[in-house]
Amino acid sequence: MSADTIADRLRQQIATATSRRAFLRQAGLATAAVGATGALAACAQGDAAQANQATPGGAADHSGGAMAARPAPAAPAPGGEGVYGGLTLEQARARADAMDAMHEKGVKAFPAKTQGMGNQVLDPRLDKGVKVFELTARPMKWETEPGKFVYAWAYNEQVPGPQIRVTEGDRVRVVIKNELPESTAIHFHGVVLPIAQDGVPFITQPPVKPGESYTYEFTAKNAGSHMYHSHINAAKQVGSGLLGAFIIEPKRPRAIEKVDVDYVMVLNDGVHGYTLNGKGFPATEPIKAKLGQKVRVRFMNEGMMIHPMHLHGMPMTVIDKDGWAQPAPWKCDTLNIAPGERWDVVIDCDNPGVWAFHCHILPHAEGEHGMFGMVTALIVEK
Amino acid sequence: MSADTIADRLRQQIATATSRRAFLRQAGLATAAVGATGALAACAQGDAAQANQATPGGAADHSGGAMAARPAPAAPAPGGEGVYGGLTLEQARARADAMDAMHEKGVKAFPAKTQGMGNQVLDPRLDKGVKVFELTARPMKWETEPGKFVYAWAYNEQVPGPQIRVTEGDRVRVVIKNELPESTAIHFHGVVLPIAQDGVPFITQPPVKPGESYTYEFTAKNAGSHMYHSHINAAKQVGSGLLGAFIIEPKRPRAIEKVDVDYVMVLNDGVHGYTLNGKGFPATEPIKAKLGQKVRVRFMNEGMMIHPMHLHGMPMTVIDKDGWAQPAPWKCDTLNIAPGERWDVVIDCDNPGVWAFHCHILPHAEGEHGMFGMVTALIVEK
Amino acid sequence: MSADTIADRLRQQIATATSRRAFLRQAGLATAAVGATGALAACAQGDAAQANQATPGGAADHSGGAMAARPAPAAPAPGGEGVYGGLTLEQARARADAMDAMHEKGVKAFPAKTQGMGNQVLDPRLDKGVKVFELTARPMKWETEPGKFVYAWAYNEQVPGPQIRVTEGDRVRVVIKNELPESTAIHFHGVVLPIAQDGVPFITQPPVKPGESYTYEFTAKNAGSHMYHSHINAAKQVGSGLLGAFIIEPKRPRAIEKVDVDYVMVLNDGVHGYTLNGKGFPATEPIKAKLGQKVRVRFMNEGMMIHPMHLHGMPMTVIDKDGWAQPAPWKCDTLNIAPGERWDVVIDCDNPGVWAFHCHILPHAEGEHGMFGMVTALIVEK
Repeated sequence: MSADTIADRLRQQIATATSRRAFLRQAGLATAAVGATGALAACAQGDAAQANQATPGGAADHSGGAMAARPAPAAPAPGGEGVYGGLTLEQARARADAMDAMHEKGVKAFPAKTQGMGNQVLDPRLDKGVKVFELTARPMKWETEPGKFVYAWAYNEQVPGPQIRVTEGDRVRVVIKNELPESTAIHFHGVVLPIAQDGVPFITQPPVKPGESYTYEFTAKNAGSHMYHSHINAAKQVGSGLLGAFIIEPKRPRAIEKVDVDYVMVLNDGVHGYTLNGKGFPATEPIKAKLGQKVRVRFMNEGMMIHPMHLHGMPMTVIDKDGWAQPAPWKCDTLNIAPGERWDVVIDCDNPGVWAFHCHILPHAEGEHGMFGMVTALIVEK
Repeated sequence: MSADTIADRLRQQIATATSRRAFLRQAGLATAAVGATGALAACAQGDAAQANQATPGGAADHSGGAMAARPAPAAPAPGGEGVYGGLTLEQARARADAMDAMHEKGVKAFPAKTQGMGNQVLDPRLDKGVKVFELTARPMKWETEPGKFVYAWAYNEQVPGPQIRVTEGDRVRVVIKNELPESTAIHFHGVVLPIAQDGVPFITQPPVKPGESYTYEFTAKNAGSHMYHSHINAAKQVGSGLLGAFIIEPKRPRAIEKVDVDYVMVLNDGVHGYTLNGKGFPATEPIKAKLGQKVRVRFMNEGMMIHPMHLHGMPMTVIDKDGWAQPAPWKCDTLNIAPGERWDVVIDCDNPGVWAFHCHILPHAEGEHGMFGMVTALIVEK
Repeated sequence: MSADTIADRLRQQIATATSRRAFLRQAGLATAAVGATGALAACAQGDAAQANQATPGGAADHSGGAMAARPAPAAPAPGGEGVYGGLTLEQARARADAMDAMHEKGVKAFPAKTQGMGNQVLDPRLDKGVKVFELTARPMKWETEPGKFVYAWAYNEQVPGPQIRVTEGDRVRVVIKNELPESTAIHFHGVVLPIAQDGVPFITQPPVKPGESYTYEFTAKNAGSHMYHSHINAAKQVGSGLLGAFIIEPKRPRAIEKVDVDYVMVLNDGVHGYTLNGKGFPATEPIKAKLGQKVRVRFMNEGMMIHPMHLHGMPMTVIDKDGWAQPAPWKCDTLNIAPGERWDVVIDCDNPGVWAFHCHILPHAEGEHGMFGMVTALIVEK
C-alpha cells in the first residue's frame, strides 16, 4: 500500500463525519469573519506550562536541541475561565482553525518520505556455513522527519542499524569496521554467548580503535528478540545511533508465533528526538495487515526513558520478554517498555481501520502543532 | 465515616504512643528554651539538594508552577557531620518541633475539604435502550488542595471528569459539547469499538470545533477499567484535566471481582501537581472498608510519569491489566503504573488501621513541610 | 576472591585479544605521532548534547551536585560527517587513546576500595527469645567512589543501613536512636505488621525527636525481601541514606530459592549519585559464584527513578515480587525496578566469565570518562 493510498484511505475514512461538520457550519456555527491572526494576537496571554509540555516529558531535554528547533506555539491557550476561556466564539473558532490546520497537515503528510531508512534486513554472506554480517560505524547526517537532519553515528548508514536475523543454531560472524573518531565495540544484548564475544572493552576485549576492524563469532543459542549496540561510551554512542535489532528465529516456532507480519519497533529518545525506527511522525512507517491476519511486534527500547506504547482498537497479547516466553500469554493495550527491554506481542487484526499506535507519555507524541515523535499507525485493511 | 471521625481515629491511634513521649519530655529530654526561630536562623546553612527534592522527582517540572507555589523549606538541614549534624540537642529539638508542627498540621487536616469533587458516577439518560452520557468541556478553576486553585479544562466541571459506568453489551452514546477555546475530541482509551468512534481528529473524525457538539455511539464489548480523554493537543488538553474513567462491568463477574468496595484511583502529574482523583494530600479521599471486606482499586495513570503506588499493611492482589485478566492473580505491595496503563487490584482488608497509600517516588509524596500530592489512606475499621 | 585476583582475571581474559591488537599496531595501524592533547584541541568543536548525557538520564539532577563534580568531557566528539567525523586517522586514534585510557583506568580499579561498607548483616541481640536490632541514625560523610565523599544520614554508619535478616515467625524488636537534627521514624516497607508498628508519624506514632529512642516490636509474618526506611521528611531522609534491607527468610524455603549465593542489591539515585549498595563503580562490589552455582539477587529500589538492571551472559529467572511468589517463574535479562519495588531473581551460573551487570539507562552507567555509577559484575569462576 503506497503512501498515496494511505492518504486516500484517511480522507475516505473521515468523509462522512466531515460532511456533517460542513452541515453544521452552514447552519450558522461557522467561523466568524475575524482572521485567525487577529484573534490570536488578541488572546495571546501566554501559558508558561506549554513550553514545558512541548519538550520531552518526564525528563530533562536529552534531545541535544533537536526538539528545540520546533517553533514556539503559535496559538497559546487563553488563561480565562468559563466558556471558551473568555474568548468570543469567533475568536475561539479562529484559534481552533489555525491549530487544526497544523494538526491536519501532519496527519495528511503521513507517512512522509525522508532520506534513509533504518532497520533493513541485512543479508549475510556465507563463509563455509558461517553467516557473516559486515558493519561499518561512521558519522553521518540522518533525516528524522522531513527537513530535520540530525547528527548520527550509524552502522552501514542506517539508524537503527541493519536488522540481523539468524536461526537458532546458526554460526554467526559479525565484523565491525570502525570509522568513528573514537573507539567502539559491539555488545550483543540478550544473546547468550561466550565471554570473549561479549563486547565490553577492557573486560572482554580491547577497544576497537578508529581504522581497526574486529570480528565476533558465536553460535546463536537463545531464540528471541535481541539487540546489538556499542558498549563503550555507550550513552553517547548508542544515543547517537549505534544500535540495531538482532533476532534469533527459533528452529521450531511455537504456534502462537506463526504470524503474517513480523515487525520490529525500536524506540529511541536521544539526540534524534523521540523516534520509532529512527524516524519521528509523520515520517514513521505504518504497520499494515489485512483483516484476520496476525501481526507480531517486537518492541525494543534503545533510549533512556520508559515508553508505554498504546495501540488503539485491539489488544496486544504479550508472549515474550527479552526473548524468553512468558509463562502464559497476557493481554494489554498499553505496554510499558523500559530501556534495554524487549517485549514481543501478537495482535489479532480483527478490527479494520487506521489505528493510532503511540507512546502514551503524551509529550512524546503530540504538541500544539499536532502529532510528532513516537506515533505511527496499525492499518488493518478489509 | 465523616472527616471528623477520621481525625478522631487518628488522634486515638497515636494516643498511647504520645503519652510515652510526654513522659520522656517530663523526664528531662524536652525542648530547651531556645525558640525555634532563633535555632533555625543559627543553623540555616542551606542545602542545595533540597530545592531539587521538593520539586517533581525524576522529571522536569511539568507542574506549570503549581508546585513552585510551595514555600521554601523553613528549616534547612544543617550540613555538619556527627551527632545532630553539629547542632546542640536544644537546637535540634527546636528544629524538629518546627518541622513536626507542619507535618502534623497536614495529617490532622486529612481529608481536607476543597471545592469540587471529580470522578463522580454520571447517571445516563436512557434513549430507546441507549445509555446517553452528556459531557461539556470548559475551562474553570479547580481547587487541588485547600486554597490552591489551578487552571483546569474539565468535563462537567469535574477533574477527573465524571465516571462513566456501563455493562458489557450496553449500547452507549456519549455527546461532547465543546466550550474550549480550541478543538477537541474524545478517545475511549482501551475500549474496543469501530474505527469511526475512535476519536482521533483527521484520522477517524473531524475535530470538534468550539461551539460544536459531537456524538459517539458504540456497543460496550470488552469489560474492564478503561478511560476517556481528549486526543487532540492531548499533552495540553489531558494535562489540563480532560480525562475520566470509563468502566465496563462484566455481565458475569468472576468470583475474584466480587468486592465490597470498588474504588477508581486516577493518577496525574500535570499542571495540577501530583494528584489522586484531581486532589493532592491532604485533600485526597481516603478509601474506607470494614475488617474482612474486599476492596478493588482500579489504578489509572493519566499523567506523564510512572507512579509506583505503595500500600502499607496488606498486599494487593493484581487481577487485571488494561481491563484484561492476568493469567493468574499475583501479589505485591508496590505497583508501578505507567502513563496510559490501568491495573486492577483486590485488597483483603484483614489488618485494621489507617494505612498510608502513596506513590513511592518520595518527592511526589513528601517534603520538608510534610506529606503532599499523591498520598491517601486505606482505612480498615474494626 | 580478592580485588587483586579479579584484576588479574580481567587482565588474563583480555590477553589473547590484546595480543591481536598489538599485532595490528605493529602492522602499521598504530597511533600516529600527534599527541593526544594537540589532536583534541584541534577538534574541540564541542557537543552540547554531551553535557546532558553525562548527567542523570531521564531526570532532573537530583544528585545535589554530587554528579556535577565529574569533570567536563576531555574529548568532545567532533561534529563532522563521514569517516572519522572529519578527523584524520591520526587525530581519531589520538582521541581514542586518550578516552580509552580513562575507560581502562576505571575498569582496572574495579573493585576499588573505599571507606565504609553498607548492607552488612547485623547480628541481633537475643532478649528472652526476641531478636533485638539496635540502630542509630546520625549524619556522617560517606565515600561513594574513591575520593568522592558525600554528606549522608546513615543507620549505624552504613549506607545502606545494616541488613536485617530474620526468619518467618520470629519475634523482632528494632530500637532506633535518633541523633539527627530533626525527627525520624522507621517504616518497615512490605512487612505485614500491626498498625502501631507501621512507622508513620502522626498517623501511627509520634515522631521520634532528636535525642529520643523508639522501639518497634512485631512478629515477622510474611517471608520475602523487604526494606526499612524513614517515613518522615522521607524524600530528604531516605534520599540521604536512611534505608536498609529487611529480609524475612521462610521457615520452609521453596526448592527454587535454595541457592549458593544470596545477594541483596539496593539501587539508589539521590544525593549520593547513582549507586548499588551505596557505592558507584568502580567501588561497587562484584557478585562471585562458581560455575554451576545458583545466585539469588534481591533487587530493592530506594531511589526516585526506575532502573532497568541488565545482566550480560545469562538470563535471570524472576521468582518473587515484593516478597510474594510470582504465579510462575519467568525469564529476562533486563528487569525494570521502580522505586519501592523489590524483585527477586535466580541466576543459573552456567557461563564462566566476568559479566557486566548494570542499569540500562546508559547515562546512569557510562560517560565519556568510562563506566561509573550503577555498574558491577557477576563473576562466574570455572
